[in-house]
Amino acid sequence: MNSLQFTAESSSNGMIERDFTVGDVPGVLWSPASGAERAPLVLMGHGGGTHKKHLAMAGRAHLLVTGCSFHVAVIDAPGHGDRPRTAHDEQEIAELRKAQAAGEPEGPIIVPYNARLAELAVPEYRATLDALQELPEIGADGPVGYVGIGLGTAIGVPLVAAEPRITAAVFGMMWPDALVEAAKQITVPVEFAMQWDDERIPREAGLALFDAFASKEKTLHANAGKHVDLPLLEADSATRFFARHLGRVVTSPA
Amino acid sequence: MNSLQFTAESSSNGMIERDFTVGDVPGVLWSPASGAERAPLVLMGHGGGTHKKHLAMAGRAHLLVTGCSFHVAVIDAPGHGDRPRTAHDEQEIAELRKAQAAGEPEGPIIVPYNARLAELAVPEYRATLDALQELPEIGADGPVGYVGIGLGTAIGVPLVAAEPRITAAVFGMMWPDALVEAAKQITVPVEFAMQWDDERIPREAGLALFDAFASKEKTLHANAGKHVDLPLLEADSATRFFARHLGRVVTSPA
Repeated sequence: MNSLQFTAESSSNGMIERDFTVGDVPGVLWSPASGAERAPLVLMGHGGGTHKKHLAMAGRAHLLVTGCSFHVAVIDAPGHGDRPRTAHDEQEIAELRKAQAAGEPEGPIIVPYNARLAELAVPEYRATLDALQELPEIGADGPVGYVGIGLGTAIGVPLVAAEPRITAAVFGMMWPDALVEAAKQITVPVEFAMQWDDERIPREAGLALFDAFASKEKTLHANAGKHVDLPLLEADSATRFFARHLGRVVTSPA
Repeated sequence: MNSLQFTAESSSNGMIERDFTVGDVPGVLWSPASGAERAPLVLMGHGGGTHKKHLAMAGRAHLLVTGCSFHVAVIDAPGHGDRPRTAHDEQEIAELRKAQAAGEPEGPIIVPYNARLAELAVPEYRATLDALQELPEIGADGPVGYVGIGLGTAIGVPLVAAEPRITAAVFGMMWPDALVEAAKQITVPVEFAMQWDDERIPREAGLALFDAFASKEKTLHANAGKHVDLPLLEADSATRFFARHLGRVVTSPA
């Protein structure tokens, strides 16, 4: 079993930021600046083409850490961030750029590519969770949440289906094709975000993925606007969702 | 023009409750107990078969008044609450009970009945708004919101389409048939609630009504569960929606 190695530490905006590795997978753990009190953990998955410290990740972490005193961790997906791209990654990205330039649908490229990334990433997330739970401020029996949109959903749906330690999840903005069977195995509370006027993922595709979750408690949030226009208030909403389901109170406006 | 007459006043749970009439329409105005400071107004519409002081109305009012210091007003719909039922009301209710007992669809009865109630209620709401804006604590130039689910949406959609003073609205749980044309005229921010497993209003019907709003800023909240299972957190969400759009900060947890 790979153990966690901290490689850097800094502090800003009310958070301690610790870079780490588990095996050869790099990640970051954000924690309350006020100290290392035991608290629930929220795992995050970044979007396609971005990385563990993308503003969307750091921004969500800030809401979760300063609003709820959670610990928040994210790792680079295969071929993303500080991880090397394989020839297969390069080929998929080239095909995607070609389809985008030609105005052709992206789904036929992104769906199988992200499914392949998920196969690799799910065991990496589980090993990361094993290692993080060795830390006294997280522990092996505390509640764990997961949030990821786009590629973060392509990885998160099979992860949450396989991982009983994750008890609440926020997903969104992904085609259902490779995910429906895993989604049908998920019964924990789910909040699902989609864009009503998404020009990349058809509306029916988003609705179909939401429909597939077996969760008794699930909520769809569909906002008017295009793919990139997902409003910031959904990050606030996700923070309140985890506060409710991981047993915390939001202490600052979120 | 009918003026507003207060007929009773009481105080509890941090709210002053004032019964009123405008002409022969009875209503209730809830205001912060801390005083009659000028503040935005939220108009509410109650659900079918209920009344202005139904728990769903008083509960929403409590969140809006104590959380945001809003004034909140609701009037009885025609044939509801303290208002007399006509022979036509009695006939519609009897037909609805018959359809329900037979397990037949309710839409063909509720849609035209609620459309008729809306024709009567829209001018009543506008006259009530005229009268309430005469009060110094509300005033003629403050922001106004509207929230109503079910019958409250059947009335609210044509009301908000006709009434430029209303600048943000929360709707939900109604068939689109009689409302699509009015919804297409609405451009103010809209939050729309539906139940994903609604056994009375088909899923496609709810999605179609949400789709019809012309609002650039609109959000669909679809929760797993049957018609009556609309979760309380949607009332919290509506409170935050009005805080954002009517220019207030939620000061207590909502």
